[in-house]
Amino acid sequence: MSDNRVVIIGAGFAGLWAAKRLSGSQADVSILDRDNYHTFLPLLYQVAAAEVEPEDIVYPVRSIFHKHPNVRFLMDEVIEVDLTDSSVKTTHHAFPYDTLILAGGSAANFFGIPGAAECAFQLKTLEQAIRLRNHILFRFERALCETDADRRRQMLTFAITGGGPTGVEFAGALAELIRGPLARDYYSLDFSQVQVLLIEAAESLLPSLPPELDRYAQKRLRRMGVEVLLQARVVQITPQTLHLSDGRVIPTETVVWTAGVRGGLTELTAGLPTTPNGRVKVTPTLQVEGYPQVYVAGDLAYVEDNGKPLPMVAPVAIQQGEWAASNILRQMAGQEPLPFCYRDPGTLATIGRNAAVAQLGRRTFTGFPAWLLWLSVHIMKLIGFRNRLQVLVDWSWDYLFYERAVRLIFPNPGNSSDADFRG
Amino acid sequence: MSDNRVVIIGAGFAGLWAAKRLSGSQADVSILDRDNYHTFLPLLYQVAAAEVEPEDIVYPVRSIFHKHPNVRFLMDEVIEVDLTDSSVKTTHHAFPYDTLILAGGSAANFFGIPGAAECAFQLKTLEQAIRLRNHILFRFERALCETDADRRRQMLTFAITGGGPTGVEFAGALAELIRGPLARDYYSLDFSQVQVLLIEAAESLLPSLPPELDRYAQKRLRRMGVEVLLQARVVQITPQTLHLSDGRVIPTETVVWTAGVRGGLTELTAGLPTTPNGRVKVTPTLQVEGYPQVYVAGDLAYVEDNGKPLPMVAPVAIQQGEWAASNILRQMAGQEPLPFCYRDPGTLATIGRNAAVAQLGRRTFTGFPAWLLWLSVHIMKLIGFRNRLQVLVDWSWDYLFYERAVRLIFPNPGNSSDADFRG
Repeated sequence: MSDNRVVIIGAGFAGLWAAKRLSGSQADVSILDRDNYHTFLPLLYQVAAAEVEPEDIVYPVRSIFHKHPNVRFLMDEVIEVDLTDSSVKTTHHAFPYDTLILAGGSAANFFGIPGAAECAFQLKTLEQAIRLRNHILFRFERALCETDADRRRQMLTFAITGGGPTGVEFAGALAELIRGPLARDYYSLDFSQVQVLLIEAAESLLPSLPPELDRYAQKRLRRMGVEVLLQARVVQITPQTLHLSDGRVIPTETVVWTAGVRGGLTELTAGLPTTPNGRVKVTPTLQVEGYPQVYVAGDLAYVEDNGKPLPMVAPVAIQQGEWAASNILRQMAGQEPLPFCYRDPGTLATIGRNAAVAQLGRRTFTGFPAWLLWLSVHIMKLIGFRNRLQVLVDWSWDYLFYERAVRLIFPNPGNSSDADFRG
Repeated sequence: MSDNRVVIIGAGFAGLWAAKRLSGSQADVSILDRDNYHTFLPLLYQVAAAEVEPEDIVYPVRSIFHKHPNVRFLMDEVIEVDLTDSSVKTTHHAFPYDTLILAGGSAANFFGIPGAAECAFQLKTLEQAIRLRNHILFRFERALCETDADRRRQMLTFAITGGGPTGVEFAGALAELIRGPLARDYYSLDFSQVQVLLIEAAESLLPSLPPELDRYAQKRLRRMGVEVLLQARVVQITPQTLHLSDGRVIPTETVVWTAGVRGGLTELTAGLPTTPNGRVKVTPTLQVEGYPQVYVAGDLAYVEDNGKPLPMVAPVAIQQGEWAASNILRQMAGQEPLPFCYRDPGTLATIGRNAAVAQLGRRTFTGFPAWLLWLSVHIMKLIGFRNRLQVLVDWSWDYLFYERAVRLIFPNPGNSSDADFRG
């Protein structure tokens, strides 16, 4: 068994599905993550929009592997990957490996825009989503007591940068939160002062999808009260303003950054061949050139498919995690690893109540059918029966009563020293 | 209307039920709280034992008063009560009042025991309950990596001080969490090293209840693996130890303080007549001697009933909040306020699965019937239909599958600057 030690760094989609594939095999698997739970990232924006509860979209990793003693989970911070010594160092431990799967995911890419890293809110972790939710709700509480109309308008202006799926989905969810429950909760506020801006540098929204989906998304978002600014490039962000390249300055205390991603765990991939945005270049078999014992899967892996890089999305991560694990099992059985082959299940993005866009192969859908499809896919994909049930309860409640389940300002930004830490 | 301005400080049971009683009346009501939600305190210990989710036991205050424009809620911190000027100052505002209801609740009373305020965990707010939950779960994560047996035993020793209802309920819930889900999650740990201690200075548990309930609670807790120490007085707490008056030193990183409460908001009650433990002395009509425009309700109010002080529990707070509000309405109608009269609904405490104790008038119950009663009362009393439904889902899941819903270590103590802040 001593040449079967597999260490997986990261319990996101890639890491978790790799571990699942290896559970019950001859491999001796350790999966490491700094948190004790897996986060269902495609629904993170709904936490930020107070649509589902944080606990609905996370699941404790340990309980997934109860029945598989060959997989052990450890909640620990990885400090160093020693490629020469073939071992992973954490705060409390060292894990020698025979094979390593790097599945460290991605982080926000601010492209060096001044103030972005310090002042923009992000949507990559549960902490960030909750911080953004609390911040948004607290703007309404503060606006109630604000007598200066300009300051109030500034508090109630919410700018989302990036017109990809996350930006579009969050803009829609935020507009619905505002028009519905918040309009009822803060009935004494003048809601004509509330603005949701969706800012995209390109000429269209959802640039990776067919143009008819962009047209539908724009029409729908505008009808929901979202102001869509295209060909608008952000050049600076301060705690009180957003600056565009055409000189416009938008007074706002809330800029949400969904405009770019890069490879995560940069400090751990130092010795490996990386792209300019921090992803690790891998061979078609998902191994690293020169380090055949190192696999990379998910957002961190840079692979091309028909000359185009594969997108940083959950289906790619899941398939790569499983594929890397299968290749490891093949090698353990004395076989050659096989080149990864991506089966595209299509793309889905929801915009609001009964409204979504979908691309399945060459076909596109919009509106209610796409929304139903989105709903069923996401319910099915959520890990753990209980989470599915709870999300379904939350969503149904929201759908039937136009009332968001949760709009707690918790933890209270007033108590915490990191009230304005947005990282 | 200008002599009808009622300001309520605190949205706990007393404050919230006072506001409910005044909704739809001629009173112009402002209810202030530092959080935007009401916490169902009797179930707080279940959050700390990872039995229900934090969102299950809290409810946004604003949405309770949607349909009552004469009640406005403000999330704000009260800085000063100016009794001469009849106004309440908050961080952002000033609220002149004609009548004030002080419903500031209670805080932990450490009786000056060295280290208690700094090192003990408390169970008075949602933040504290989550911090305790994360700390307990994280002890198990850390114990996994600990090679020194004494250190491991210390990490896995959990001491609860105070054998009243909260201490008994939490000890039972923690023992069930450990024996069930945690034993499965951390199957490689030696669970003979795990200890739950319940420490009480008096000769019996539940000292305010009849002795047969104490006997049942002790028997039941011992069967669940809880070590009950009676006549044990805590004299010092450090981050690593608990010291008793007989010289015993218990190595533990987790001391939970449920041994005493005192009036909260001490900085706001400066000019008022108070008891040594910080509660405000009120007249039988719940007004303050010398300040007929100031009412006090809930834990903060000190009232005697047949020569004994009324306990600091939810039913007293609810009845006093409603009574204070009714007296205010009587005064607005030109009538005299009436003396408060407490209708005791009985006492209930749950110990674990199918086990509880109950006192209704002169009758006592134990076991399954008491547990069923406890269950139905708490489900009925939870504010908001949705919360009841969710708690029911959580509890049923737990009951049917012996699996706790949530055992997330979140927020991650490793990320937060207040990892060891236990206040």
